[in-house]
Amino acid sequence: MAVRVAVPAHITGFFSVHRAGEPRESGSCGAGVTLADAVTVTVHRGGDGAVVVNDEAAEVQAVGNVLDVLDVDARIEAMVDVPIGAGFGVSGALALGTAVGANQLSDQRRSENELVGIAHAADVRAGTGLGDVVAQHRGGAPIRLSPGAPETARLDAIPDRRPVEWVTFGELSTEAIIGGETDAIDRAGGQALQGLLETPTLDQFMQEAGRFAASSGLLTDRVREVMDAVAAHGGQASMAMLGNTVFALGTDLSDAGYEPTRAQMAPTGVTVLTEDGAF
Amino acid sequence: MAVRVAVPAHITGFFSVHRAGEPRESGSCGAGVTLADAVTVTVHRGGDGAVVVNDEAAEVQAVGNVLDVLDVDARIEAMVDVPIGAGFGVSGALALGTAVGANQLSDQRRSENELVGIAHAADVRAGTGLGDVVAQHRGGAPIRLSPGAPETARLDAIPDRRPVEWVTFGELSTEAIIGGETDAIDRAGGQALQGLLETPTLDQFMQEAGRFAASSGLLTDRVREVMDAVAAHGGQASMAMLGNTVFALGTDLSDAGYEPTRAQMAPTGVTVLTEDGAF
Repeated sequence: MAVRVAVPAHITGFFSVHRAGEPRESGSCGAGVTLADAVTVTVHRGGDGAVVVNDEAAEVQAVGNVLDVLDVDARIEAMVDVPIGAGFGVSGALALGTAVGANQLSDQRRSENELVGIAHAADVRAGTGLGDVVAQHRGGAPIRLSPGAPETARLDAIPDRRPVEWVTFGELSTEAIIGGETDAIDRAGGQALQGLLETPTLDQFMQEAGRFAASSGLLTDRVREVMDAVAAHGGQASMAMLGNTVFALGTDLSDAGYEPTRAQMAPTGVTVLTEDGAF
Repeated sequence: MAVRVAVPAHITGFFSVHRAGEPRESGSCGAGVTLADAVTVTVHRGGDGAVVVNDEAAEVQAVGNVLDVLDVDARIEAMVDVPIGAGFGVSGALALGTAVGANQLSDQRRSENELVGIAHAADVRAGTGLGDVVAQHRGGAPIRLSPGAPETARLDAIPDRRPVEWVTFGELSTEAIIGGETDAIDRAGGQALQGLLETPTLDQFMQEAGRFAASSGLLTDRVREVMDAVAAHGGQASMAMLGNTVFALGTDLSDAGYEPTRAQMAPTGVTVLTEDGAF
């Protein structure tokens, strides 16, 4: 008995941090793009909470947190087709897929918002994400207007789709960055959100993300170098928050001579794919 | 130059009516299921607001209302693969597809929530729908907790998918029914929503929908007859609000000997498919 759930990846372009007493009320505002065909989570009945990612045993605290809250004995097998720890919201995707799959497998009868809230709080508690889960629930190009789980989060979106390209240079620790002082990030993130809401287009999103990367102090040397090269070709790249990863829309990275990986934006959020015997 | 947009159909299982001074604040609470591959709207630049549905000229007031608000000269061509006027939310789908497509075509740079709000108000003003648009924006099996456009509407969903079957016996006038006295509907709809929120599963949804159809006074003789036959086979059917249409999940209609049309639940809401030359 198993349930399979598809969850998009989420590249955050800019954000601001909002801490509250409760993890469900904590989170971030900001905007990003979600990527289709990125993460598939299969939740198997029984097992001891073991997590296997791309056929290797993994320690994913956000997933453990979800299983604890739901009090489900399950084994999680995930196929992840984007870099891990590099700004694609994989921990959030695994937590969200686990929540939706485990709910169905154990007949807990929780609503979609409840499950999104549980996964969001699990990611926040693990220190691995502040807004990926609600964005991955929505799909598309989500704008997070207020932080937290679905009962407090307000979202809007950019009503457009474009392919996404990226090149990654490796991991950054989300926990190390969002756990510390975030004044410069929050100021830059607030300005970027205001700019995007005035003109909610994908082009504006990329511009705001580029400005945020620079003024937040998060920009790495490798990403800056690629951004400059893409700009010299008339394009706009920016940094995936939080990873040592540079991303762009359309063919902006290819056009500048890089050999990026390419994905389609996800038209949808979390989706139950199959339940053995249910159809 | 054209933009093509896919919008799911929406079968409402139960609802309550909430009228406010402004169409954007008016709407309904309730729950339903959305259907994939149902409506495709192509918005062409120029033209005089003509609407062509399945290759025939059509008068769709909700679409005209959207084009008026956006002040766009466009021609709308729609392919609709579900019955029209029979409880599938086609007017809302056409309004939503037109709003998203016309925004992109005319570079108006409105956000997704704004466009959903414009389409919702257009459907309400036309008297053809009170909650289809926000449901079609979400996809899946949406639960409408509060009425209106996205700035006031709160939604949840049943985190599950199952195929949908239906048999239709023709049209009912939404305007005639929701324009009049709705006390019995509102009472039954409120009870059904409460019941579903206690147990947000697809089985519970069908049970609440069946109870609502009977106690709201909306049930037609033809639909009642099929519901009884399905119940005699251990299944659960109900009435698509508002059409002379009976629907069920899984194979409940087939199992009772009917020859229904079948569709998959939509995993996603409104989706921009292509923009000529944009990719």
